[in-house]
Amino acid sequence: MDVSRLTRNAVDVLPADGLAEKLKLGRPLRVKLGIDVTSPDIHIGRAIPLQRMRAFQDEGHTGVLIIGDYTTRIGDPSGRSAERPILSDEEIDANAKTYLDQAMIILDPDRTEVRYNGEWLAKLSYADVVGLARTITVARILERDDFDKRMKAQEPISISELLYPLMQAYDSVAIQADVELGGTDQLYNLLAGREVMPHYGLEPQIVLTTPLLLSWDGAKMSSSVGNNIPLTAAPEEMFGRTMRISDDQLGQWYELILEQQVPDGGPLEAKLALARFLVARSHGGEAAQAAEEHFARVVRRGEAPEDVPELALDGEDPVHLPKLIADGGLAASTSEARRLIGQGAVKLNGEPVSELDVPRAALAGSLLQVGKRRFARLTL
Amino acid sequence: MDVSRLTRNAVDVLPADGLAEKLKLGRPLRVKLGIDVTSPDIHIGRAIPLQRMRAFQDEGHTGVLIIGDYTTRIGDPSGRSAERPILSDEEIDANAKTYLDQAMIILDPDRTEVRYNGEWLAKLSYADVVGLARTITVARILERDDFDKRMKAQEPISISELLYPLMQAYDSVAIQADVELGGTDQLYNLLAGREVMPHYGLEPQIVLTTPLLLSWDGAKMSSSVGNNIPLTAAPEEMFGRTMRISDDQLGQWYELILEQQVPDGGPLEAKLALARFLVARSHGGEAAQAAEEHFARVVRRGEAPEDVPELALDGEDPVHLPKLIADGGLAASTSEARRLIGQGAVKLNGEPVSELDVPRAALAGSLLQVGKRRFARLTL
Repeated sequence: MDVSRLTRNAVDVLPADGLAEKLKLGRPLRVKLGIDVTSPDIHIGRAIPLQRMRAFQDEGHTGVLIIGDYTTRIGDPSGRSAERPILSDEEIDANAKTYLDQAMIILDPDRTEVRYNGEWLAKLSYADVVGLARTITVARILERDDFDKRMKAQEPISISELLYPLMQAYDSVAIQADVELGGTDQLYNLLAGREVMPHYGLEPQIVLTTPLLLSWDGAKMSSSVGNNIPLTAAPEEMFGRTMRISDDQLGQWYELILEQQVPDGGPLEAKLALARFLVARSHGGEAAQAAEEHFARVVRRGEAPEDVPELALDGEDPVHLPKLIADGGLAASTSEARRLIGQGAVKLNGEPVSELDVPRAALAGSLLQVGKRRFARLTL
Repeated sequence: MDVSRLTRNAVDVLPADGLAEKLKLGRPLRVKLGIDVTSPDIHIGRAIPLQRMRAFQDEGHTGVLIIGDYTTRIGDPSGRSAERPILSDEEIDANAKTYLDQAMIILDPDRTEVRYNGEWLAKLSYADVVGLARTITVARILERDDFDKRMKAQEPISISELLYPLMQAYDSVAIQADVELGGTDQLYNLLAGREVMPHYGLEPQIVLTTPLLLSWDGAKMSSSVGNNIPLTAAPEEMFGRTMRISDDQLGQWYELILEQQVPDGGPLEAKLALARFLVARSHGGEAAQAAEEHFARVVRRGEAPEDVPELALDGEDPVHLPKLIADGGLAASTSEARRLIGQGAVKLNGEPVSELDVPRAALAGSLLQVGKRRFARLTL
């Protein structure tokens, strides 16, 4: 048994020798990954722990994918200074459906068990919640970096937020997890599962965390910020967005996504290979080839000159494009810029723009084209 | 409207002018008192807020008595360093029944609405609990003296304990309380009700707290310590226990129980009148007279000499009576003392003793009699 293949890129494996012990059980392990369904997309960063689940599946283990329909009603406080907005039941159901389709891009469907945590959480009474809450102390929960910072900054933490990790922990009880996977931002939630399980007569699960894949702007990928690459992004968009990462990021992206070193041949070639891989994984080889040709034509070659002047995004966020274009001298006025946008004569990375206001992070690094001859590279 | 009659002996009335405002509504106010049913008895100390409820009832308001059958399953963390033991459903039901009988010694049954909080709390789901928990911050709950001390002493506080005040607060929502009564140790729980109610579209309740009536040993009355006087204690026992309070305590007891000043005539006469009142309230005038005669016969007059020597309770707790008697020179040996107890020849305040081990607090101040002639006054 090649444990190192299972733990590749892991940040934490807790306890250190626990996984080897579990593997000695000689039966398929139940490897849990819980995902909340706060947005309709899984981005390639959230696919990193899915890739670990696939590695377990390839060794004969069972991936148990928890769709957090019930937990999504609360919102995960991890790494956030405010609670997430509450989604409607309809939005949650719709998101859950698209999530599954996307997860199966990475997973082996034959070795995947899909469960919705409403199945068991909706049955718990106040007394059950109290029994569950009895297993963890306040101090233990407040140790978490995110809570600790907020307590020190005297920012309010609602008691409801303390109940979130307990729900996730109870998921591990309900499905009798042997291993739980998650990003490093989930470490304390996963450890809560370890603490709770023995109170329900179960061996504590092994916790395995993976690094966060940062976006081209150096921040965590987020659909609300607009710096993410969904697994189901259109081929051209996925290709173009991947090409926006800096040369410095290539090492991490190769290691986490392709699980290999950056090949020789220079950063541009490496980025193209990476973008090709991502599009092929989601959409197949033909789509990848078409996306690359599109990219080469309109973004790299196309009409863009060799040296494109830079235009700094130093105004408001979101950026009002007509103002940016007029201030940057790419159109005579904001009204002309607005007219050009309406005609489809303004393009970002070769794609016509339809919106007037775009989040700054979504623009950073893009090639802006106005009419046939005016170009600018947008920078932060 | 005589507000001062309603707030007599109150420690806190919050907000200060809130009660006068509520009284202007011109309808009977709903005056809540919640009691957990952790033991079968209500002692005379816990009857103090019941007396306030009675004062409201005498002015035409409605007393809403919440039997905390559901909350008792958790245990109130107030003023305790450990969570209370969980009672069985049968014990809870039995205690709830005796509680009601006892409460009606003080209350006006025609103006009392009795509710069990399982009625609404048992219906709440995990999502409902989370919605409720969203209304209060962790910092707010940890402000409580008891939690604060335990956090600073690094003693564990389980998350379940934070959910207790929320249940009590939700009781106020469910019965639409105008006023909530409680001992000073309940202040934060009552204030939690004020915070939660507006989130459910209700005006916050007025909070009115009463002082704790301390027992003869200066501690909070507790059936587990044995220093309490249950409302249903047998007449002789109630009389004898009341007589054990110190002269210094007379002022507080008169003020809280009789709502009047200590009368002239000396402390002994005042204590007798107090004991007489308490027994008459619970058992009627004849029982009070009989209890007083019993007390005079066996405890004061009886065979007890004028000057009884003192015997200090400085050994282990609970006190092993045979050892106490032998060490105190009231019997030749522990085995003789044990034999005398078996024969009913050892009495405490005139009552034969049947147990060999008695909590120290239950003995303090008692008159110990061994055989016909040997006496000692037990002191701490």
